[in-house]
Order: sequence, then C-alpha cells, then structure tokens
Amino acid sequence: MNGAQAILRTLVAGGVEVCFTNPGTSEMHLVAEMDSVPAMRGVLCLFEGVATGAADGYARMAQRPASTLLHLGPGLGNGLANLHNARRAGTPMVNIIGDHATYHERFDAPLQSDIAAMAGTVSKWVGRALTAAQAGALTAEAVGCSLGPAAGDPAGSRIATLILPADVCWSPGASPGAVTPASPASADPDRAEAVAKLLGTQQNCLLLLGGDALLAPGLTAASRVAQATGARLLAEHAPARHERGAGIPHLDRLAYLGQAAAAQLAGTQHLILAGARAPVTFFAYPDSPSDLVPAGCTVHDLGNAATLAQLAELVAPRAKPVAAVDNQAGLPSGELTAQTAAAVLAALLPRHAIVVDEAITSGRFLAAATAGSPRHDWLSLTGGAIGQGMPVATGAAIACPDRPVLNLQADGSAMYTLQALWTQAREGLNVTTVIFHNASYAILGMELRRVGAAGGERSRALLDLPGLDFVHLARGMGVPATRAATADDLAAQLAGVLAEPGPHLIEAMVP
Amino acid sequence: MNGAQAILRTLVAGGVEVCFTNPGTSEMHLVAEMDSVPAMRGVLCLFEGVATGAADGYARMAQRPASTLLHLGPGLGNGLANLHNARRAGTPMVNIIGDHATYHERFDAPLQSDIAAMAGTVSKWVGRALTAAQAGALTAEAVGCSLGPAAGDPAGSRIATLILPADVCWSPGASPGAVTPASPASADPDRAEAVAKLLGTQQNCLLLLGGDALLAPGLTAASRVAQATGARLLAEHAPARHERGAGIPHLDRLAYLGQAAAAQLAGTQHLILAGARAPVTFFAYPDSPSDLVPAGCTVHDLGNAATLAQLAELVAPRAKPVAAVDNQAGLPSGELTAQTAAAVLAALLPRHAIVVDEAITSGRFLAAATAGSPRHDWLSLTGGAIGQGMPVATGAAIACPDRPVLNLQADGSAMYTLQALWTQAREGLNVTTVIFHNASYAILGMELRRVGAAGGERSRALLDLPGLDFVHLARGMGVPATRAATADDLAAQLAGVLAEPGPHLIEAMVP
Repeated sequence: MNGAQAILRTLVAGGVEVCFTNPGTSEMHLVAEMDSVPAMRGVLCLFEGVATGAADGYARMAQRPASTLLHLGPGLGNGLANLHNARRAGTPMVNIIGDHATYHERFDAPLQSDIAAMAGTVSKWVGRALTAAQAGALTAEAVGCSLGPAAGDPAGSRIATLILPADVCWSPGASPGAVTPASPASADPDRAEAVAKLLGTQQNCLLLLGGDALLAPGLTAASRVAQATGARLLAEHAPARHERGAGIPHLDRLAYLGQAAAAQLAGTQHLILAGARAPVTFFAYPDSPSDLVPAGCTVHDLGNAATLAQLAELVAPRAKPVAAVDNQAGLPSGELTAQTAAAVLAALLPRHAIVVDEAITSGRFLAAATAGSPRHDWLSLTGGAIGQGMPVATGAAIACPDRPVLNLQADGSAMYTLQALWTQAREGLNVTTVIFHNASYAILGMELRRVGAAGGERSRALLDLPGLDFVHLARGMGVPATRAATADDLAAQLAGVLAEPGPHLIEAMVP
Repeated sequence: MNGAQAILRTLVAGGVEVCFTNPGTSEMHLVAEMDSVPAMRGVLCLFEGVATGAADGYARMAQRPASTLLHLGPGLGNGLANLHNARRAGTPMVNIIGDHATYHERFDAPLQSDIAAMAGTVSKWVGRALTAAQAGALTAEAVGCSLGPAAGDPAGSRIATLILPADVCWSPGASPGAVTPASPASADPDRAEAVAKLLGTQQNCLLLLGGDALLAPGLTAASRVAQATGARLLAEHAPARHERGAGIPHLDRLAYLGQAAAAQLAGTQHLILAGARAPVTFFAYPDSPSDLVPAGCTVHDLGNAATLAQLAELVAPRAKPVAAVDNQAGLPSGELTAQTAAAVLAALLPRHAIVVDEAITSGRFLAAATAGSPRHDWLSLTGGAIGQGMPVATGAAIACPDRPVLNLQADGSAMYTLQALWTQAREGLNVTTVIFHNASYAILGMELRRVGAAGGERSRALLDLPGLDFVHLARGMGVPATRAATADDLAAQLAGVLAEPGPHLIEAMVP
C-alpha cells in the first residue's frame, strides 16, 4: 500500500476517526485514500483556523484526538492561532501537514517554508517522514504522543504534528503502524497525602481546579473535600471543558480582571492546584501585579483529577458533595442587553447542551445566570486567541451529534473564523450560534483605559466595528439566521431554533 | 516620550505612513498614540491575514513599506500566510508584534508563545526591544532593513519584524530613531557585459524577467534587447507586479502547468534571469521533472532592472521597444464562462487599473484577453498561499486612491480572507471584486488527476463548495453586490460599478 493509505489506516486504528481538512495539491493522495479507508470521516473546512479549532472542540468532547490535514507552511500558519488555543487547552490532536516531495525541496518552490519551525511553536512533538516505509510508524508515534500526558511542554501541549512530503504519500511499500494505547491518568499518592496533611492542619486553604478536575468526578471529589475540610473551591479562568449545572457541584471561575481575581483569592494561605496552574493576570498592566497568588500564600501542586479523587478518600471518606440545584429562571422581557440575553439563554438552555463561550465582554453575566440550568458542558477560550468559538462549536457538534451545541459568540471574534458556519451547514450540525452584536471590540475600549493609555477619536475609531450584518453573513454560508432586537425576540427565536435540527444563527443586538 | 510614540514617529519619518492592524490589549498604547502622530494612518482589519496582505498590496504599488500592528503570536500566526506571499513577492514590510510586558513573560500567561520562531519563518530581520530607550533605534533598523535589498534570505524576504513588549511601549525615555534611506538599486556592469557578450555570440537565448524588471523600464529595456539580438522574452509565472497593456511591451508569463512551461522554454540554450529565479514546477508530480530548465541549457543570472537597462545600452543602443497595441475587444454576449468573463473584463478594463488576480483556474483566459487593454498593473499570487487577493486589493487601493482596483477572485480563495470587504467598505475604497463562483476547488479536481491519485465519491466531495452566496456575504460587510448569470449581466454590472466610487462585488456564476 502507499504511504497515504498506511497513514489513514494507522490513524483509524488508533481511534482517530475524523480529519478536519483544507487540502491542496500535496495532500491529494491522502484525500484520494479517504475512499479506501471509509472509517475516516473527512470534514472540509474553508479555512485552516476552522479545521484546527474544530479538532480542538471535537477532542474536548470526544476525549480522543481528531486529525487535521493542512497544506504546507501557509496552511499550518492559518491554523496556528487555534492550535495555540488547543495547546493551552491540553487538547490531544494529530496534525498532518503535507509538504513538497522530498526531491522537490531543493528547488525552494513558491510554497516552501520552514514548516517544522512553525509547528514547533505549538506542538509537543514534530516529526517528518522521509520514506513511505516510515509513514505508518511515524503516524503511530504521533497518535501515541497525543494520547499521552502533556509532558515536556510548559503550556501542556498534546499536539503532535507530522510533516508528510507528497512522495511519501504516493510511494508504495508502506504499512500501518501500531499505536500504543493511552494509559489512564494515574493518581500520585504522595501528593494526595501531603495535601491531606496540609488540609488537616492549616486554615485558609483554597483548591483551584482546572483541566480534567473540572469534569464531574473531579468536581464531586473537590466538593467532598470542601465539605469535610472547609477549603474553598474555585475553577480556573478559562477551562477547556467545565461540567456545570443542576446535579453537579458548582464552582465559580476565577475572574478575568486582576482586581476581581485578587478579591476572590484574598486571604488564601495555601493555594492547592488540581489540574490548574498558579494564577496570573491575562495581561500586564502598569503598576499592577502579574502574579495573582496573594502575598505570603504557599502554592501546592496536587495534580490531576485522579489524585484529587484520592485526596477526597483520604480527607472526606464519608462527606457528600453539594450539587447545584435546578433553579432555571423564567424568561425576561423587554430590552435586550448582555444581562437579559444571559437570562434568556439560562432559561432556555437545553439539557446536556454543550456551550461554547466566546462572548467576551457580552458574556459577563452568563456564568452566574446558568449555574442552575440543566446539566451542560462549558467550553472556554483557553489561549486568548480569538476566533475559537465557531470552530470549537463545529467540532463539538461532530463529536456529540445527539447533543445541542450553543455557541455564544462576540461579533469581533466571530469575524475571525466565520467560515465555520459553512461546515456547520454542509454537515448539518446541530449548532445554534448567538452573536452578541455590539458593533465594537468592546473589551479593548475597556483595556485602553486599564493600561492607562489616553486615546482620542482616531484611536477609539480603531476599536469600532460598524456595518456588520450577521444575518446576511450566515445566509451567505447556508445557515438560516434571524435578528433579535428585544429579549422577547431572542427568547422566541431561540426557543424556535432549539426545536429544529441543523445550524442556526441569531444576531442579538446588544448595547 | 513613551516607546509607542517614538515608534510611530520613527515609522512616519522613515516613510511608513500606513499601519494595517488588528490590535489587542498589549498594543493599546500604540493605538492610543495614533492620536498624537496623525501622519500615521491606522487601518483596521478584522483579521490579521487581511492586514498582512493589505500591507503587501500597498507596498507593491506605493513602492515603500507599510507597517502592520499585530497581537502577540496568534495575531502573527493569522498573518503568516500572507507574509509568506509577501516574502515571495520581495515586498518591503515592517511588522510590529505586540508582546507581553518584559516582566510578565516569566508567568507564561495564556497568550504567550514563541513569537520570534514564528516570525523567523518569513522575515529577513527579527528584533525585540527590551527598553523604551531601544524602541526608536530598533524601529529605524527594521524600516531600514525592509528598504534595503532582499539579501540573506533565499526567497528574497524584505520583511522586518519587531517584537514590542507592552512596557516598552508605555515606558518613558524613548526617542525616535533615524532611518537610513534606501539606496537606489544599482547595476552590475560585469554581469551586463557578460550577458552582452553571450547574446553577441550565442543563439537560442531567453530572458526570463521577474521582480522589478517587470515594471515599464525593465520591459522596455528587455524589448530593445530582444529586437537587437533575437533573444526571446518571458515573464515569471506569478509576478508581484507586472505592468501591462497598450503602450508597453507585452510579455507572456511562464505557465503554471509544467508541461506547458516546458513547451515555452523548449529549445532554450541560454536562460538569462533578470529579477527572476530559475524556473521550477509549483508542485512535484510522480514521474515528472521539477526543474524546468531544459536539458543542456545554461542559466545566467543577469540581476535587476538596472543591470537590464545597462545591458540594453550595450547590445541595443539604437533599438526601439515593441509596445503592445491598443486592441481592446468588444463585449461578448451569451453564456457566462471563464472565457467570456475574461472577454468582458478585457473589454471594460479601465485605464490605469490595478488588477489583483487570484482567479486560479477561472483566470486562465485573463492574461491573453487583456494584453491589448489599456495600460494597467497586474498583481499575482506570489507564494501560492490562497487568500491573498482581497487583502492585496485593499492595500493597493489605499496606496493608489485615484486608480480603480479590480480584484479577480476565485470562490475558494475568497473565503480565506473575505473580511477584507469590511475594510474596503469602512475606508470607502475603490475596489471592484469579481468572484468567479464555480462552487468548487476546481484546481484540486485537476490536481487530483495530475498527481495520479484515483479518488472516488468521498474524496471528490471534499473539493466541492456548495451553498455559498457571495451577494449575501458582501452585503453582510457593507459592500453592495450583484450576481451575474450571463456575459451580458457581467458587462452591464461591471460597467455600472466601475462608474461609481467605493467598493462593489459581482458574483459571476461560471461553470
């Protein structure tokens, strides 16, 4: 078999069954072999940032990697921002980057560039096959690497990137590689015991949860620990996936604004990290600390959800978790604002919804409003690179076809990877996008003040987004769309589209 | 003054008067200082790939660099594909990449990544300021570097990238730097004489022109050389800027398809490069050569347009150039095809138009059809990274507000950086976009066969683009749009919009 077929067979055997792609000439043999390996689902994206973001969203929900298939350095470049977010999310992913044939490289043809250097900025592992015989084994290594722990990269990347010259794909003599299955994450008894001892002897302890600790088992264990020891609980600022809603313990998330986060952490003498990193401000500000760990507070790294579960057995063997109660509020009426929009969404949030949140400033009321909504998953913008929401929603919908996906989306960031709507239409995905249309990069208006920059008329104009019409934009990609001018509009439209399959978009006009 | 003001003042003093930007928090001080340095024109782009492509288009026409202002690694990542194209175009450009404050770096906050590694893949020069005192001088060095020759980078990059931590921008103690002006490109008399001797003694010589040799003076010199010596002339496949039309010598361009290019070059015994590189195929194909230089042919590097002019003085002191005659054809009628669309465009092409060509397969009849149209500039996709056309058209329109810009655009590549339309609307730019809507990545259908890949129903479906509606998409960004179903529609609509200022889009439905 040729290299392309060996690669696809290796991926599928390793549990990687979706490939988000925008291919080019150098990837044509991999595209052609999708017919001979029907277990691989190819999903066309009209821009590589959609492909990488969709692979991220898929893996956050499926708990196994998707692959991407991208066209040389520029294709990878277009996907880098969402690979950055996926790296920060610790998302497993396998990128296949097509390249010129090995013998073509010396000619420095127009599309040639340093793919490995670019890939290195986001990847845990970068490989390059030189012969068809290597293709299967290297693909297996890439999959195995993405399935393994996020070791070796300070930001926790689980992204493996394999560069595949075209002749490696079209040459014969290849065979599938064998993927080493992932070992389940294991607990660290020493750390569990050390933290147990700490909680038994110290006051003013706070557990900061992140990563896999924000799924239901981790939340349950943390709630039991809190009940038994009096430790406080918080979730990291932007979790890759946070299970929430009625029936599971509720955790507030650490705030974006440094002052607010400092208030949440004030008085903590022992900060215990469970899958989270020590908190820092998102950006630096003049005369403001970057480090959010309170003065005099000691930081302890407990580790993953498995260790957290062990800690709960040690300190809270008989404690019961406190679950959020179902208190889904009624629908508001009248003016549409970020606050009433949040109330509408909370009131109508369907059971088992997947919420993809890139609402930025317009989303500031969402978390509190939905705390008592039916059980759902909340996927956040992990790396701060805007343009993640619509692709992540697309991938999450492919991972979970039976669950409704609700993408809460700011207008400015929607314009980054709007092409995701086309894939949602093409694949018939059950995604409802709510655009919070405030016609500005509102967060930057705030940040301009926070960094102490004066800014006059010309600079303020650079933060305005007049003239966008998301109803037209969505229809241009085959997604039915409506505009909501009042809270009542939003409620009626949202209730309507949630009852229908397939993608929809609602443009919510907010101040 | 603070670093931000010193940077803007240095740019403006160095002739860099436009900044295409999508800023974030770390760039707020630079944005704010746009009010204090009004000679700098900030142009907001809704995606960084638009900003970098616009800077490319601006510089191709203005013959001096624009700047970009981008937000950390992900902002740069989003701009990389069009930086790749600009690198291949030899376009001068100054990128300012905002970064976290120097003291914030050690916290590895969510948006942190290896900016320098990413920038290195496209830049001739990468710098990083560490103090406000350095900011002006480093900015001056970046501008000077972009003004200088494309030395040191095999692909000819003239891109300088300066990484600017936020505290460098907001701290006082800065002063503007002094930019070393560019020296005009000089001739190389030794090369001119060597080629003169060659042309005097050898038959079957071909001059392949690229770079600055494709502007009117180079074309005129080359035509004189051809008249005097019998040497044949060809233009490189994808020139950054090619002056064409009635009144200046016409050159055919080297074909995209290897077989066609080989036929153009067949029989050449001496290939003389004037601003061009030795021709190679765009991609590798099984059982097909990558190197397009005919067997037994010797390659000679003449160098730039100045040396070409000197060559003309040596071998053709009294020869007259042969200029293309004005033979603008009449309008076709009936069915709209790639061929009749080309005829419409050729018939209506306004004098001094700037044509930005990313029409891909639909553009195959354009070059021949427009050879006798009024004088115009033709800007090509230099690096093969699609999504260049609409941004380059945007930048070209800002560089030349008095000239009509005609962006001939394939549907698949239009979807990469469609956000450019918003900037065209916001800035009131005189850009007419014609989308060739064939609802597929048609070139990949061809390439699938050319690389010898079988491909069945599933793989073919991955190359289809059903369901796009560019009239809706354009209106969604404030650009008036119409759809043309016949050649007569296209002619009537194009004649109408060329007579009106501001941006327009025509969706030309072609098979």
